[in-house]
Amino acid sequence: MSVRDLHSFWEWGRKIICVGRNYAEHARELGNPLPGAEPLLFLKPPSAYLRPGSAIRPPRYSRRLQPEVELGLVLAKGGSSIPQEEAMGYLGGYALCLDMTARDTQEECKRKGHPWTLAKAFDCSCPVSDFIPKDKLPDPHSLTLWLKVNGQLRQQGHTSQMLFPIPHLISYISGIIRLEEGDLILTGTPAGVSDVQEDDELQAGIDDLVTMKFKVKSD
Amino acid sequence: MSVRDLHSFWEWGRKIICVGRNYAEHARELGNPLPGAEPLLFLKPPSAYLRPGSAIRPPRYSRRLQPEVELGLVLAKGGSSIPQEEAMGYLGGYALCLDMTARDTQEECKRKGHPWTLAKAFDCSCPVSDFIPKDKLPDPHSLTLWLKVNGQLRQQGHTSQMLFPIPHLISYISGIIRLEEGDLILTGTPAGVSDVQEDDELQAGIDDLVTMKFKVKSD
Ligand SMILES: [Mg+2]
Ligand SMILES: [Mg+2]
Ligand SMILES: [Mg+2]
Repeated sequence: MSVRDLHSFWEWGRKIICVGRNYAEHARELGNPLPGAEPLLFLKPPSAYLRPGSAIRPPRYSRRLQPEVELGLVLAKGGSSIPQEEAMGYLGGYALCLDMTARDTQEECKRKGHPWTLAKAFDCSCPVSDFIPKDKLPDPHSLTLWLKVNGQLRQQGHTSQMLFPIPHLISYISGIIRLEEGDLILTGTPAGVSDVQEDDELQAGIDDLVTMKFKVKSD
Repeated sequence: MSVRDLHSFWEWGRKIICVGRNYAEHARELGNPLPGAEPLLFLKPPSAYLRPGSAIRPPRYSRRLQPEVELGLVLAKGGSSIPQEEAMGYLGGYALCLDMTARDTQEECKRKGHPWTLAKAFDCSCPVSDFIPKDKLPDPHSLTLWLKVNGQLRQQGHTSQMLFPIPHLISYISGIIRLEEGDLILTGTPAGVSDVQEDDELQAGIDDLVTMKFKVKSD
């Protein structure tokens, strides 16, 4: 099988697939309808990866940058049309992620019927933690995700609230877009999104198991 | 610099960035407004690559699959905020490409304000020719792109008609999304898009310099 090191998946992984509106409270706070029978998907390119120690630089065209704290799934092997019952076997582990969103741009894209690329795929739009091996999070549907900005709690949610749980996501996505080793799936964000500004410090975590920090900097 | 072989960019390249509405006649035929001051961007994942010899399989949720013949740009080196005057120096060559589009799905995405992922990023959505070294196409803005379906001409257009020429595209994109070696940029399609059906044979070309064939197959 693999000769690649999942511990540095962001250096060589070729795909980031994101799920929108996977927590009901968050869909409502943005005034979005809940997804129908199927998850809502969008993409980020691997150039969006950002590692702790680097600053988040907002895209020049946005005045409303918002972080969305999300659980990321890292694929250990690829596949197409993966059955839900087998989906967990394709997982190598997890990463804590921020789905950085240019909210004003996204609203314009939605209004105009444009792709979401400018809102979601810009450089720095995917800060990620260290790789978390699968056995460190034996029940990924019973985790608390949280985000603090300058020490104040902004988002907190529980992965049991996902509208489409992990096996459903992996199975559904792999029926449309072939998954490959090193791919990352962002599983959606709980409620509480809000704007961040220059010099804000973002700290995100999974319970008290994982934490990461990023600073926002325009230069 | 590089140890990677651009002749197989689809095996290791990490990004496909597509430009929409870059030929005025095509924008009009779909009833779309022309782009404003900036190109319209969307993404395909590298899992979308398809090589001659493999069949194009329509996604199960679409009844209106349409090929768009496009000139692809293959990056020989990466960069951010590349000035237009230097942009051609980042190019390693070209590929003839089809931007396979689930048109009915795209119309629904546009209506609902959804991302275009289901319409544009499915498996088989990026058939590509062999790599074409840069010196084989010394003037990329004076090429005729054409597409035949079952021997009948459907699309024909000239790259001089691009609303945003190549240096503009590279410069603009690299200001938002960092480019990397092996990335592919699809530069938009001329007028004449139409549906294809099971068993149709698609033949596309650049003048009489490059040609490729694909067959549509549902299984
Ligand atoms: Mg999100
Ligand atoms: Mg997209
Ligand atoms: Mg196109």
